[in-house]
Amino acid sequence: MNLPTKTPLSEALRQLVGQSVDAIDTPALVLDLDAMKRNLARMAEFAKKHDIRWRPHAKMHKSSALAKLQMQAGAVGVCVQKTSEAEAMVAGGVNNVYISNEVISPAKLARVAALSHQLAAEQGQLGIAVDSSEGVSRLAQAMNACRTATGIPAVTDVFVEVDVGQGRCGVRPGKAAVALVHEIRKHPALRFAGLQAYQGKAQHLRSPQERRDAIGGVVRDVLATRSLIEAEGIPVDLVTGAGTGSFVLEAASGVFGELQAGSFLFMDNDYAKNERDPAQPQFEHALFVKTQVMSAHAEHVVCDAGHKSHAIDSGMPRVHGLGAEPQLQYFNGGDEHGILRTTHPDAKLPALGATLWLIPGHCDPTVNLHDTMVGVVGGLRSGKVERIIRIDARGALT
Amino acid sequence: MNLPTKTPLSEALRQLVGQSVDAIDTPALVLDLDAMKRNLARMAEFAKKHDIRWRPHAKMHKSSALAKLQMQAGAVGVCVQKTSEAEAMVAGGVNNVYISNEVISPAKLARVAALSHQLAAEQGQLGIAVDSSEGVSRLAQAMNACRTATGIPAVTDVFVEVDVGQGRCGVRPGKAAVALVHEIRKHPALRFAGLQAYQGKAQHLRSPQERRDAIGGVVRDVLATRSLIEAEGIPVDLVTGAGTGSFVLEAASGVFGELQAGSFLFMDNDYAKNERDPAQPQFEHALFVKTQVMSAHAEHVVCDAGHKSHAIDSGMPRVHGLGAEPQLQYFNGGDEHGILRTTHPDAKLPALGATLWLIPGHCDPTVNLHDTMVGVVGGLRSGKVERIIRIDARGALT
Repeated sequence: MNLPTKTPLSEALRQLVGQSVDAIDTPALVLDLDAMKRNLARMAEFAKKHDIRWRPHAKMHKSSALAKLQMQAGAVGVCVQKTSEAEAMVAGGVNNVYISNEVISPAKLARVAALSHQLAAEQGQLGIAVDSSEGVSRLAQAMNACRTATGIPAVTDVFVEVDVGQGRCGVRPGKAAVALVHEIRKHPALRFAGLQAYQGKAQHLRSPQERRDAIGGVVRDVLATRSLIEAEGIPVDLVTGAGTGSFVLEAASGVFGELQAGSFLFMDNDYAKNERDPAQPQFEHALFVKTQVMSAHAEHVVCDAGHKSHAIDSGMPRVHGLGAEPQLQYFNGGDEHGILRTTHPDAKLPALGATLWLIPGHCDPTVNLHDTMVGVVGGLRSGKVERIIRIDARGALT
Repeated sequence: MNLPTKTPLSEALRQLVGQSVDAIDTPALVLDLDAMKRNLARMAEFAKKHDIRWRPHAKMHKSSALAKLQMQAGAVGVCVQKTSEAEAMVAGGVNNVYISNEVISPAKLARVAALSHQLAAEQGQLGIAVDSSEGVSRLAQAMNACRTATGIPAVTDVFVEVDVGQGRCGVRPGKAAVALVHEIRKHPALRFAGLQAYQGKAQHLRSPQERRDAIGGVVRDVLATRSLIEAEGIPVDLVTGAGTGSFVLEAASGVFGELQAGSFLFMDNDYAKNERDPAQPQFEHALFVKTQVMSAHAEHVVCDAGHKSHAIDSGMPRVHGLGAEPQLQYFNGGDEHGILRTTHPDAKLPALGATLWLIPGHCDPTVNLHDTMVGVVGGLRSGKVERIIRIDARGALT
């Protein structure tokens, strides 16, 4: 139900380009472009070294500009969770989009089919996940209607989602997946493209061993399901999944052919709390909320960023120490305020008007609160604004 | 940093008007206009009966259309928390706006001064809160610069915020407030308009007695501070404050002249958990997230509304029983999903494709996730869409 997103940037935002970071009004979502590019290069190198495809999740950055940057660095395309996110990506020029989620409403499936036909006409590709025979037959119906209307012989890639331990969407591993594969193969407008296997609960297990155990179970489930499908003479071209917390394990499994990790690009505070697997590249925090102290008191100060500026589903943001140990802790001050107290008895509270940088607990829903990211080069202390990045799938919920 | 908000509504949204609720795509923010109007009438009646002004908080609905509806029902104006919210309200035709919060950045204060002058020229009024002498002098400086530039003799209403127990912004009750009143009165472009006294922590104390105790303390703090100011021969024209959880107490105090409660209009699940004070009108839930079951399993189903559709800072949403006892409980399924399980052993899970209605835990940050509300008359079961309400201060963070 979001408004059209192709409105021009405001004059104030356009004038910001080329200015110092000091000119950025608060609160604002600021992207350290240098750190982001280093994260991107590390992931590209990892994928190359392990000879595995990567399709980062655009539900995280919701920006077609960043999706295209990732594809220039070697990503095969992007994942999204919503039909309207796919529409925003395609409208922004991304031609390879996979909806790694189920769509069941006929109205939405008509939009999915339209996107599939548009991308087919542009030598692109659309994919989608399913976990029910109703979902398959409704998708086929929408594709057939669109094929009749357009005359384009588009084929959508369809992945069977297997519940590998998250307990959310997906069929149980084993026979249920095989039955769904047969359903898909009945329809010429659908191609059985492989298995969707994402274990969200494994991503924030703190120790590498816990994550290894969890992904070990994922791999066993996927192997068992794949064997049953292959036993019927049907090839399973691709297994796709993995997040920033676990992707080194899926990459090493020999079973997964594609990685969906998205958060590595920005790195939030929750992922930083994971004990890093030695095989995982060291990613840097690249996403910050710039905020200002707007009320100062003897024992605390108040900043102008509350949870309308950053999501708190994965905890409060961390105050960035800009290289030094952070001396301040952020406490929930409601929708529009953050309350800050010192963490050491000898630390000083910042003055009224001082700038602070927050590292969000969870980047995905934080990005979704903003229309734009201010892209900065040269660091947060003395850098300058290089570009304004539009979050063109912000609020794309349907 | 938000984009201009005056973009036209999408064709899909405009076509929705006049259609059945069934045509609303999911997830969507739906406003039961009948329930909202009854809530509005109850508040108007309460204020009239208690002979008290009301200035509902527009940080909740973030819609200039609803602000004007409230003013037609008798509200004197609206409160906002942010300069950009004030700008959105004024741009939408609201001519009496109070920023019940501190602004310290000179760039923002220039915008505050510009708004104050614009409203003065339109026979409207701007107000703002302060809690530091730095804030007062910077505001005066911005007002003087704007007066010089425009030639308009605008005067901003300035309220001294007193910390009445929330431990966030505001000066301590007593002498610190008096000092600030003197600071304000040095500047001809500022008028000392009274005291801002809001106790956020009191709003969700569950029993009426706990809330009475908390607001009793607020009233003592306000009285002590007011007496000290009046002892210097300075009148305190207005004490403003109160939220939906406590406003009957501020109204009965004889000290408060204006109520800021905002959530009563929509009523969220967190406020519904309060044991109602007998003096408080019974407000109804008017704000819902319409969602659809998009994945169905033996022990649970999954809907398409996660915490990018509704805020979870005050707990998970409640599934609306549409008159009957709700048989389903919502569990966190992440950014884009909700997981639903039955609450009674003999209850049935809804089918794939079924519609559900969620009552958000907290309405303010939920509204801020959406660009529009779909206004429905005739109820959620069989009503129709009457209008699309633009959330024109959505994302107004600065």
